Amino acid sequence: MVTEAMVRKCLQEVGVPGATRNLEKLGLVRGVTISGKKVKITLASTALNNEAQAQVKVRTQEAVAKLSDVGRVEIEFVEVRPSEINQINYVVAIMSGKGGVGKSLVSSLMAIALKRQGLEVGILDADITGPSIPRMFGIATRASGSHSGILPVVSRTGIEVISMNLLLPEDDTAVIWRGPLLSKAITQFWQDVVWGKLDYLVVDVPPGTADASLTVLQSIPVSGVIIVFTPQDLTAMIVRKAVNMAQKMSKPVLGVVENMSFLYIPEINKRIELFGKSKAQKMAQTAGAPLLGQLPIDPELAKLCDEGNIESYSSESFAFLAQSIIQMLSQAAAK
Amino acid sequence: MVTEAMVRKCLQEVGVPGATRNLEKLGLVRGVTISGKKVKITLASTALNNEAQAQVKVRTQEAVAKLSDVGRVEIEFVEVRPSEINQINYVVAIMSGKGGVGKSLVSSLMAIALKRQGLEVGILDADITGPSIPRMFGIATRASGSHSGILPVVSRTGIEVISMNLLLPEDDTAVIWRGPLLSKAITQFWQDVVWGKLDYLVVDVPPGTADASLTVLQSIPVSGVIIVFTPQDLTAMIVRKAVNMAQKMSKPVLGVVENMSFLYIPEINKRIELFGKSKAQKMAQTAGAPLLGQLPIDPELAKLCDEGNIESYSSESFAFLAQSIIQMLSQAAAK
Repeated sequence: MVTEAMVRKCLQEVGVPGATRNLEKLGLVRGVTISGKKVKITLASTALNNEAQAQVKVRTQEAVAKLSDVGRVEIEFVEVRPSEINQINYVVAIMSGKGGVGKSLVSSLMAIALKRQGLEVGILDADITGPSIPRMFGIATRASGSHSGILPVVSRTGIEVISMNLLLPEDDTAVIWRGPLLSKAITQFWQDVVWGKLDYLVVDVPPGTADASLTVLQSIPVSGVIIVFTPQDLTAMIVRKAVNMAQKMSKPVLGVVENMSFLYIPEINKRIELFGKSKAQKMAQTAGAPLLGQLPIDPELAKLCDEGNIESYSSESFAFLAQSIIQMLSQAAAK
Repeated sequence: MVTEAMVRKCLQEVGVPGATRNLEKLGLVRGVTISGKKVKITLASTALNNEAQAQVKVRTQEAVAKLSDVGRVEIEFVEVRPSEINQINYVVAIMSGKGGVGKSLVSSLMAIALKRQGLEVGILDADITGPSIPRMFGIATRASGSHSGILPVVSRTGIEVISMNLLLPEDDTAVIWRGPLLSKAITQFWQDVVWGKLDYLVVDVPPGTADASLTVLQSIPVSGVIIVFTPQDLTAMIVRKAVNMAQKMSKPVLGVVENMSFLYIPEINKRIELFGKSKAQKMAQTAGAPLLGQLPIDPELAKLCDEGNIESYSSESFAFLAQSIIQMLSQAAAK
């Protein structure tokens, strides 16, 4: 006898065009009905154009037909909104208030750390006018989809990414939009993207406490916020604005990360505090949250980011940061 | 016989409460009428509250009464909008697209360079949610004004500054505003501030190509744009978006400035290119504008910024940048 579990296991082998995850992990399997030798499978057509649907249909039929005792395999497509498909366990927003302190860097490193643990991770790049995530991961393909939804683009190590730059014709096209359009784009990145089943979604929030940040905190069910800063005094002031904003909007600050803490010069075996003395303890206190790590200025990391190869980075500071992020998030997500 | 010129010269000695510039330079003198020994002076009451008006009245009468052949001095206040008073010769916007590349730093250094030439200079900090100008100049006082206008706060060396942080109760209050409010604030910084007579107004534009940048380029008569970038590839991409935007809005790009070009380590007499090889020539080419200078990462400068003492900075790179900015702007302004 064929069982539903057997059929669903087969569906884990069916790849979706434009995605690396299978039908089951993307949450596209909506139902399996078995009557005798006949198997009926209901699939969401979300984000699949006609060609992709045809391919999925053939692949599904072939995969299920391999089971013994299976006769006819009937495939039905239903239109479902991405929001009904997505099952995201935990959403964490990376904020700072100040630009250029390394929000995208910390977002990426966090996603990489979680992925290396074997978790399913996505990055929502909410920096519509200055998106830097795809470049760091060396993603050059564009996102695919249909009228019913968008599929994220997957990185080399399997991190799901959506970013304005994956939807633009050219990397350097300027998105000259006022706030309402920015907010709409961010909301769509949440509502219209087939994220499927994710353990963590990391949201890279652009600088400032205006439209984009507001929309992220209001329209996306952010579970917690991580604040990134550099040791400069004036950065600290602007970062306090971000902490202030998170608190006003009742989002817990889970931790703080100091970037550009120091530069190590091997020739003289010396650490230089380029941007002044570390503000790490003070910022942790201001935010009322633990210090998760301190990243140095690392020319090697800058190079990997420029080459689109951030996923191959490893360093002592990153290992430390990764460990405290994983520990902190597993505690936060368990609550 | 008393002449108008003699009276106007006297008015150059009359200070305005809350400002360092005199009545004449602030453009508040609206008319001088002389009939025999009687002198009638019409002043704009713009940005002056009742107390300030009373002080100005007494000071003006005392100053003019010193002239021989002057009998009665009559002072009349008229309400005039700041836009009718302001005479700004040249407005230059500092943009980048990317956050944290040093727009505020370059804006400040440019204003300092021009001020050191004896020119009248103002800075309009259009970064409403992340203002860093006042901190760099060590300005802790708040802006004063009345229902009819706002007076900029003046720095130690006489640069006129307006910034959201000069209007907030606390430095770290978050301004959680959507685009339309941001745009309104920027427009007000242009329309409602008594800039008076300025040779140059430097506008520090926030990151991104959304509301704030759009408003600056649409509502303020920007004569030209200077683009700031760092050597990172991904910065270059986002900076191209800004160049793209300036071009779309028909604003000439006057020049480009590379920040964080290198770090000099005196112990080993070596320049380290922390963020990769210089992109200066390439960016100048992309922008179709000259390279005005390259600034290193300078821990001394970071320290001065944090101490609010940027005006006492001097270095070889800054001297070079200052010279090329002055030369370029004097050519651009003469057109």
